[in-house]
Parts: sequence; structure tokens; C-alpha cells
Amino acid sequence: MIRFECDYNTGAHPKVMQALMDTNLEACPGYGEDDHCAAAARLIRELCQAPEAAVHFLVGGTQTNLTVIAAALRPHQGVVSTAMGHINDHETGAVEATGHKILPLPSEDGKLTAEQLEQLCRDHETDPCMEHKAQPGMVYLSHPTERGTVYTRAELEAISETAHRHRLLVYLDGARLAYGLAASDLTLPDLARLCDAFYIGGTKAGALFGEALVIPNPALQQDFRYLLKQRGGMLAKGRLLGVQFEALLSDGLYEQIGRTAVAQAMRLKQALLAKGWPLLVDSPTNQQFVVVPNAVYEQLSRNYSTDLSGHPDPEHTAIRFCTGWSTRDEDIDTLIRDIQAL
Amino acid sequence: MIRFECDYNTGAHPKVMQALMDTNLEACPGYGEDDHCAAAARLIRELCQAPEAAVHFLVGGTQTNLTVIAAALRPHQGVVSTAMGHINDHETGAVEATGHKILPLPSEDGKLTAEQLEQLCRDHETDPCMEHKAQPGMVYLSHPTERGTVYTRAELEAISETAHRHRLLVYLDGARLAYGLAASDLTLPDLARLCDAFYIGGTKAGALFGEALVIPNPALQQDFRYLLKQRGGMLAKGRLLGVQFEALLSDGLYEQIGRTAVAQAMRLKQALLAKGWPLLVDSPTNQQFVVVPNAVYEQLSRNYSTDLSGHPDPEHTAIRFCTGWSTRDEDIDTLIRDIQAL
Amino acid sequence: MIRFECDYNTGAHPKVMQALMDTNLEACPGYGEDDHCAAAARLIRELCQAPEAAVHFLVGGTQTNLTVIAAALRPHQGVVSTAMGHINDHETGAVEATGHKILPLPSEDGKLTAEQLEQLCRDHETDPCMEHKAQPGMVYLSHPTERGTVYTRAELEAISETAHRHRLLVYLDGARLAYGLAASDLTLPDLARLCDAFYIGGTKAGALFGEALVIPNPALQQDFRYLLKQRGGMLAKGRLLGVQFEALLSDGLYEQIGRTAVAQAMRLKQALLAKGWPLLVDSPTNQQFVVVPNAVYEQLSRNYSTDLSGHPDPEHTAIRFCTGWSTRDEDIDTLIRDIQAL
Amino acid sequence: MIRFECDYNTGAHPKVMQALMDTNLEACPGYGEDDHCAAAARLIRELCQAPEAAVHFLVGGTQTNLTVIAAALRPHQGVVSTAMGHINDHETGAVEATGHKILPLPSEDGKLTAEQLEQLCRDHETDPCMEHKAQPGMVYLSHPTERGTVYTRAELEAISETAHRHRLLVYLDGARLAYGLAASDLTLPDLARLCDAFYIGGTKAGALFGEALVIPNPALQQDFRYLLKQRGGMLAKGRLLGVQFEALLSDGLYEQIGRTAVAQAMRLKQALLAKGWPLLVDSPTNQQFVVVPNAVYEQLSRNYSTDLSGHPDPEHTAIRFCTGWSTRDEDIDTLIRDIQAL
Repeated sequence: MIRFECDYNTGAHPKVMQALMDTNLEACPGYGEDDHCAAAARLIRELCQAPEAAVHFLVGGTQTNLTVIAAALRPHQGVVSTAMGHINDHETGAVEATGHKILPLPSEDGKLTAEQLEQLCRDHETDPCMEHKAQPGMVYLSHPTERGTVYTRAELEAISETAHRHRLLVYLDGARLAYGLAASDLTLPDLARLCDAFYIGGTKAGALFGEALVIPNPALQQDFRYLLKQRGGMLAKGRLLGVQFEALLSDGLYEQIGRTAVAQAMRLKQALLAKGWPLLVDSPTNQQFVVVPNAVYEQLSRNYSTDLSGHPDPEHTAIRFCTGWSTRDEDIDTLIRDIQAL
Repeated sequence: MIRFECDYNTGAHPKVMQALMDTNLEACPGYGEDDHCAAAARLIRELCQAPEAAVHFLVGGTQTNLTVIAAALRPHQGVVSTAMGHINDHETGAVEATGHKILPLPSEDGKLTAEQLEQLCRDHETDPCMEHKAQPGMVYLSHPTERGTVYTRAELEAISETAHRHRLLVYLDGARLAYGLAASDLTLPDLARLCDAFYIGGTKAGALFGEALVIPNPALQQDFRYLLKQRGGMLAKGRLLGVQFEALLSDGLYEQIGRTAVAQAMRLKQALLAKGWPLLVDSPTNQQFVVVPNAVYEQLSRNYSTDLSGHPDPEHTAIRFCTGWSTRDEDIDTLIRDIQAL
Repeated sequence: MIRFECDYNTGAHPKVMQALMDTNLEACPGYGEDDHCAAAARLIRELCQAPEAAVHFLVGGTQTNLTVIAAALRPHQGVVSTAMGHINDHETGAVEATGHKILPLPSEDGKLTAEQLEQLCRDHETDPCMEHKAQPGMVYLSHPTERGTVYTRAELEAISETAHRHRLLVYLDGARLAYGLAASDLTLPDLARLCDAFYIGGTKAGALFGEALVIPNPALQQDFRYLLKQRGGMLAKGRLLGVQFEALLSDGLYEQIGRTAVAQAMRLKQALLAKGWPLLVDSPTNQQFVVVPNAVYEQLSRNYSTDLSGHPDPEHTAIRFCTGWSTRDEDIDTLIRDIQAL
Repeated sequence: MIRFECDYNTGAHPKVMQALMDTNLEACPGYGEDDHCAAAARLIRELCQAPEAAVHFLVGGTQTNLTVIAAALRPHQGVVSTAMGHINDHETGAVEATGHKILPLPSEDGKLTAEQLEQLCRDHETDPCMEHKAQPGMVYLSHPTERGTVYTRAELEAISETAHRHRLLVYLDGARLAYGLAASDLTLPDLARLCDAFYIGGTKAGALFGEALVIPNPALQQDFRYLLKQRGGMLAKGRLLGVQFEALLSDGLYEQIGRTAVAQAMRLKQALLAKGWPLLVDSPTNQQFVVVPNAVYEQLSRNYSTDLSGHPDPEHTAIRFCTGWSTRDEDIDTLIRDIQAL
């Protein structure tokens, strides 16, 4: 069984593990106030060209999302997201559990547009009953999205401009940012310039666990550590997060992980297209969604694990292939050969 | 200006006001533990043929909805509603502020169907990622709905059976129940038999304010007064609610208010149809939604207040006419004459 | 049975009832956007000499408290209160249900001091683990307190100065403000100058129900109506609140209600002291707490209802007598005679 | 600088790190549904003699506490704790952020007693205003406590009996359980028998991070994974927790870590007592609290890091020494020599 069902089924990249071993016996202050976290934060501010940004390290994505959103919004405000956005569809109501409504927008490919956002804001602002509705206070984007698609710089600029003009904050979920950076013209400095907060995902890109939250907007920075602690997101041995991000962000490792997995996914995509199977969406990143006849799915499932993405009709199955830091080129070779042979 | 924009723009029915005057100097225990509340609760249990039901009186609908939903659900559970359901569309995220997600279903006419509910429950139960999604724990219905439509007994039986088979509770928002009872085969005993909780609306049917919450399901009854108090819904002079419901539910006043307003609305509906204007939905109750040319809307607005329900296209306006306990037959006559003359 | 157990056991002052009757058939916009609310708000801003203050009307005290506190605090902030403060001791965790911790301070007489507050703030600010504790964000005062005591102008000035210097907001619960105004040098303009928000209580001073929330601090004013709606505190027929406060605040009715009830309480207090029974606290307002032998309590209970305030020792009972707008002088006379005769 | 300020300033025990290295390239299902978690859960059920207990693995203590408490209580219920309980004093209002009040009891040594609990429950049950107060729904204990003290089996039996008789759940925070097991007659099977839920702490006893939550009470087991996910506590690479607890709970490693650190602490305690310095509390575990003259504190601080626990008076400082899995015997030797030399 070769596993392509997700990008977090193995442990950490060997360089990350080595860094954890090397620092294991160091005695550090707890709760993220150690030298490794400070060094990793410095690296991130440099890479983002955002010398004033606050940087915090959290263990996982849901925790990061709920903490940022609860910290940023007043009680009557909601967060705009696509209906398939991770916070709306895959976090068991975590945002609502902090008291906030999600305002869903339809999307086919996982992206939302500046036009949709403009319309939603205008509808609210011109509604004579506006006080009877949750007020849009933030827009949540994922990049890459839940469908593997990415925003271009121009798209994010338009969304950011629209949001800020209507006094909404922009928050970007970068759980798979390594793969987004490899497949879009958006750079870390762009994100720091256009977002009020975003995170650089570690869990799905070579870390054991960990997400690096970047908060360029000073208004969101205040007292953030209180909020981390309150939501259970302040790791006692915070240094574990600092150490991992130091390793990931040194010597271009994070970029390399992204580039390699995307290249593997592109080879696979060509094989899928050559086979004539329709893609669910045209993804330029490490997630590839394809619709295959049920019999094909069955055959593939004997040797490969994939993620089931639904049944467009009774005869077909939509599946997701994921590459990641531990995907080997030879596994891709084998998979492509098997696909060609089907 | 004759007002048809809603059914709560005047005070209370004269019999209700009289009862408040008559009892004004009585010294009663507070917080709903007085004889008037006890008597009104007795009346309700009799009318519902539900001798074991708990009855509580609250001031308003949003408060009732949020208190019941927060009391009934565990933290990870959500409440199923149509997208246009009052809790989803018109309560500023009040349910989410208690920590619960609303699971919206599409609807054209304000009603949801047993089939939709069955599908949603099955989708959840067969989702390998179910734990990453809010669990359906309750279905919220309004009767009449936000579009004035009503459920039949057979429809509610099917929904109730489906919900309970999947371990969801059934909660029915009866803000306008007076008008629903006049326009559907559903009776109070039906509601008590098919719902775990529902409320008999007073605010929109002749009371100054007040909703009578009926809880037939014993599992929901426990400690409910704590929850009332916690959410700010326990009125100090609770007797005001008891006194009003005693008046409304004696001598058939509540039914009469509903019947009269519905009859007025039916006369108006005939006039609208005769004019050839399309109805937004075929409502048998006191709310009538009609689509008129913009010029007509302008002309009507000089003498009549209505509620704006959107613009189906740039040339037309959808408006709502509401009748209520204080609508006079002569006002309907005048309105109909003016419509005919247009 | 003559009732002294509380100040909200009867309906409304006749002038308030009359105003409700007089306006009953007026058709008004809902949700507090009517002329009566506007007029009452104008009256309040004048009485408070606070032309820029926001004024909102809510039905009850718990609802007002939880809405203001939830609106004002960020998630990691707590509200300082005496341990016996109504929000800490008598609202079923309503504040915590909005997500906020109460930071209790000890008090014998219901008041907290600027010194206590200074110490609490300093302790927090110098705590190396501050981020592991809820941050003080507001101080909650009641005036009169739960023990009937009042703040002087100098005391409130000191508390306000201390709070603001440490960046805490000041919120004052005026459920019984009518009686406080009659027994302290603090005026409405003082409250508007020293508090970020406070409310003028109606329920316990002659209204059927209703509290007038005054928000002098502009930072707290923004979007407040959203928050009202979200917490279930926006009354559909909001005019009922406007009408009542118009009546209460015209022709000095509110002040007169306060003065009269306090005068009655002072007469009673003299009788209690003459009897040699110790007071639980020296209250200058309409609540009088006295400790009597159990046998006395039993005898009194045959003809008078009081509120039980505990058992200081097995032989004694602490009870509360309350006067209010509907207390008659002859009832006080009778009570005093019976006390003297004991 | 030799560090005694806490028991979580280094990484993980070498055997734990080795297990993480050995399994790093295994491809496992995510979210705790892997074989390592299953194996660790099996080990725990055996050690607890609780074949039906549910076991879940979380990253940290605050997260575990808030998730269990929010999962177990209805909205109007509060959790009883000593005032110095970790949830009340050191988690930034995390429990309140889930909507629940903490009901604090005074304590000198960190423990609460069955008598205190009995009194609190009775006071609530006999309070005529009970519905105006948060209902006690759970008792929170820490073992060892925040002061290093432990419960005896008889004490926990009495608390458990009292709690259950009054329908409260018993939850025990075992952040430092390794040290408690080494210093009390309470065993894991006792905890499984007497508690509705408790956790076996990893973070402070040799793991990189991780707490093993044990839920013997079937009523609390239902849907728990939903709640984990909702609160951000479901680790993507859940196997990391399984692998670590497999290592800790095999070959008696967890017990050995506890025993060794406690033995070191007892040697230190003798040295402190020999010096005549008063202990803040008589702790039999790895935390030792001692009161020293300020000058002594200053001298010690040159070579040793400790945790500051306050100033009993202006001339003295209370400090905490902590031993842990990485404390070396020679460090204790050096510290004792330096103390003797002072």
C-alpha cells in the first residue's frame, strides 16, 4: 500500500527530527519564551519583510483558526468564508463554539472573489435590518484552498482592498502554504502586506506539528498571548515549535519541500489527464482531485490509499491524491505506471 | 398612513390591557412563580392535552429560541434550519453566540421537508469524517414560516418521525402560531405530540410581549429555570406574562385573533391575485408577499406602510403585507379599493 | 399579609400604566426605533447632562449586565466585582456564559474600594505569569449595592480614576438607582462623567419592567444595537420601554418614588434600632437588613413577608425589609407598631 | 545555572525520543486513529483495570481541562475547585470561555475536602434562590495539587462519594500524576474507580507533550471525539501521542520517572528543613515550596533557577523547587551542599 490520502501521515522531515534531537536536553523557559522561538520568529519576519509583525507558534490549524477569529472579532461579527472553507466544513463548529457565525459564500473551486465579497458587504450595509444580522467582520481565505487552488497576487490584492474598504480583516489559512508558494506568484511579503493575519503551515509540510501565525496588523497583536493561553494553544514546551520552524525555514527547506511535492503532483496530473479522466478542479498544487469510474477506484484502492471526495454520479468516484514531504519519486513512478496500465 | 408592515406595531389587545390593569396592584412572588403563571400554564397544558408538559413564559422570540437551543444541545451539536429560518437570518448570530452552528437547508417557501432532513442526517452518519463536522442535534421549524406558509399534520409527522429516528430533537417556533392554527390542520395537541419543544407566540398575536414555551419532552424539562435565568430571560415581574396569557387563552381570544387576521389577509390576497400580480409564495396566513412594479410600490407607499422583501428584478419590488389583531376591516376595504383603482 | 420581601412584587406606578394605556393603539416602528424611545432617551441625556451619550432600553437587569459586559470586553478579559455582586452571586453564571471570568473581591457591606482595585490591578500587571490569568478589563459596581449601601461621589471618583488609569472600564448597575439618588451625593451627571456605562433601573422603581442603559463612552457605543439583538434584549415593541421611561422621568416621578420609599425605610430603620436589633449593615436606602431572634422572625412571618438573608448563628435570622413605589405609609405604621409590641 | 523552576524545561526522556525516531517514517492514519494510539490506550486500560474506559490523547493540560469540562456540563452548571486550582488561577479564564462558572473553595494546601464539598452542595440545594446561581455539576481536583500535596485513597473516596451523592461528576487533573503515584496510596485503578474522568500527565513527566485522558464514566464517553476536534485538541499526527505513551507506560518508565524525581525532592526537603526554613506546605512530591530570607533567595538565584511563589512578608520570599525526569542526582547534591553552606 502506497499512501497518497494526505500530506500528514508520516512524522517529520529528518532535518526537523535531528533538530529536535540536538536540542532535547537544553533547559529552556516554557510557553514560547525561549531562544528558539525568538530565532524562528526573527527568520519569519525577515522572510516576510515585516519587521513589526507579531509571530506566535501553535500546534494545529483548527486551534490557530479559532484563536485568531475569536481574538479579532467583536461578539456580533461573523467571518466570511466559502461554504467549503475548512472552518465551515471541517472543524466541528469550532468557530461557532467561540460565539461567531460563519457567513458562507458559494464556490466551485474553493476560492472566493472580491466581487462576491463586495456584494455581501454592500448587501449588509444597505440592509435596513442590518442589526438583525451578524455583521461581516473578517474574511477567511485558505491558500491553497481545500481544492488545491491558489490565489494570484492580483486576486488577493483585490480581496484585501475590498475587505479593508468595508472594514473587514483579512485572515489567510496557510495550512498548505508550502505548496501554495510553489504554485502562485504570491510571496510571503505579499501575504504580510495584504493580510491582517495568516499562518505558515508546518504540520502538512514537514514538521511533526506546528503552525506559525504571523500578525502584521498591530491592532490584532495586543494581548495575543492571553488568547493563546485561554484557548489551550500555548504549548508548555513551546521551544518544540521554535526548533522545528528554525529547521524548516533555514537553507530553503520549506520552499524545497513545497516545490518537490508540487512537481510530483504535476507529473501525476499529466498522467491523469492523459488518461482522459476529468479533474474535479484544475489544481496547481500537491492535491489532485480526479473523477474515475468506480471500477478504477476499486482497482487503485488495492495498492494506493487516497481520500474519497464524493460521488458525482452513481458510476463515478471523486478521489484526492496528495503528495507531501515524504512522497518518494519512485512511488509516483509506480503510480503513474499503474494508471497507464489501467 | 395605514400600517401593514408587521403584526407588532401596536400595543396589546384591549382584553389583555384590561387584565394587566386589573391585576396591577396585586403583590405576587417574582420570577414566574405566581398564581397567574400557574393558571396560564394549566390552561396551556389543557389546550395541548399535555398534562406533563413544562410551560415557561419568556418575553421575546429570539430569547426563547436561543435559550431552548442552548439548553437542548451538547456543545458539538448544531441545529438544522432552512437558510431563511429566523434563527439563521434574523437574530444576529444569537444561536452561534451560545456556541452552536446552524446547519442550513435550502428552501423556496420557508418550509423544510422530511426528505431533506433524512438526507442531511444520512450524509452525516455515513461521513467517515463525521467527527470533523457539527453533529445535527435538533431541527428548527417555524410555523407559520418566515414566508407565511404552514406545515400540514402529515408533513410535521414525517419530519418528527425522521428527526427522532436519527436522534434529533424537534423544536417549533410559533411566533405567529395564532395565524398558523387558523390556516393548517395542525392543532396544539399535535404540536405537543410531535415536538420536543415549541412556543405559542404572544407578541405578534395580541400581547404586549411574551411567548409561552411548551416542553413536552421530559428530558428537556430538567433545570430549565436555571437556563432561563442565565440567558436573561427570567422576567422579574413574571406575572405580567401569566396575566397576558390567561387573557389570550381564555374565551377563545387567541384563536379569534388568528382567524380574523387570516380572513382579512385572504380578502387582500384575492385582490392581489385579481390584479394579476404574482405572489412570492402562496401563503394561507396573515403575511402576504407580492411582487409589484416599482411604480405601484411607490404609489402604495404614499398611504400604506409595508415591509420590503427585495427586488426580484430592477423593475419590480417584492413587498409584504401583514394583518394583525389591530387591523380593522375598514382598513382592508380601503386598501383593496386602492389596489383595484391602480 | 403585608409584603416587604422585595421592591418588584406589584405592577407599575399608576402614571406608568396610564401612559401605556394612552399609547396602546399607536402604530409605531419596532425594536426601539420609535418616537417614545427617542423622547425618553432625550430626557435621559438631559438629566445626565450628557448630550453625546448613547441610550438603550432593555427589559431586565441580568440581560443588561450580560449584554454590556460581553459587548465591552475582549475574550481574555474579566470583570472585577465584589463576591456578593449581583453578577457573581445571583445571575446563574450569565456573565461566564458569555465567556468572561468574574474576578471577585471580598466585601462586607457590598461596596468595593479604590484601594482594593488598585491592588488587584497592580498584582496583575506585575505578575510574571499575567498571560495565564484573566486580564481585568472592567469594574462592576452596584449602586445601591446588594446590601443597600451607596457610594459617595468621592468614592466613585477614586474608583473611576483608578480603573481608567489601569485601562479598565467602569460599569455601574443601577437596578435600584432611584433609591441611591435619594441617599447619596452622587447625581446622574456624576454617573455620566465617571462611568463608561450605567443603567437607570425601572423594574424596581415603578415600571412594569425596563432598564435604561446609558453609555457615555463613545468606544462602547459602536454597533450596540447588534449586541442587543444578539443577546435577545431587543424588545419587538420597544415603545413600551420608551413610554414607561417617559412617564417615570417626567415631573420628577422617578426621584419622588426613590425619596418616598427611602423615607419609609428610614422610619422602619429607627424602629429596628430602637428595638436593639443589630443591623447587618448600615443601609441608607430602601433595603434594611436586620438580625432578629428566630422566634421574632417566626412571629413577624405571620403577617409580613420578608426576604431571608441567612443565619448568622443558630439562634438568629437575618432578614431584609424592602420598601418600594407601592409601599403605603399605613403599612409601615402597622409594621412599626407590631415591632414595638414584640 | 542549574534549573529547578519547573518540570517541563527540557525535551523528552531519551526512550520517548527514540520511539519517535523509530516510528518517524511510518505512514499512519491521522487524528488518533492509528495503531500506536490504540496500543497505548490498551496499556492504559490494563494499568487502570478499566476495560471499558475511553482513552483519548491531547497535547496539553489546559486544553484537556477545558474540553472535559465543556463536554460534561450543561450550560447552567459550574465546576467546584479550590481557589488556587489550576483552572481557576492559571488558565486565563479558559473554562469561563466555554461558558461555565468556577465555584471556588478556600484551601491552604491545595486540597479540598469532602466536608467543604458537602456544605457547598447542601447550601445550593437548600437555597430558595437556587435557580439564580450556577448549579454545581462537577468537582475538579488536581493530584498532586498546585502545592504538591496529594489525596489519600480515603480522602478521594469520601470526595467521590459526596460528589456522586449530590450528582456531581469527579474530574481529576493529573498533570503531575507520575509524582502523585509515587507519594500516595492512590493507584490508577483507584482513580478509574473513583473518578468520572482523569488524565495521566505526560508533558511534566518525560514526554515532549501529551496528556492521556481516561473516561471511565460511559455517559461522558459519547461523541467525545467531536468535542476534541471542536476545541482544537485533535492532533493531526495523533500517532505522536500514542507513540510517546507507549514508551512511557512500558517497562515501568512512567513510575520510575515519578519515583526518582520524588526521591530527589525528598533529599532536598530534608536539607531545607535542616536549615530551619519553613515550608509553605508539607509536600511529599516533586514540588517543594520553602520560605527563605530575601538575601538567601538572592544568593541562590545566582546559580539556580526557581519559581517565585510570593512574598509572605517584606523580608522573605517563597520559592518553589521542582525536580523532574531530567534532574540529575549530582545537581541535587550540589544544591544541597550550597544550601548547607549558606
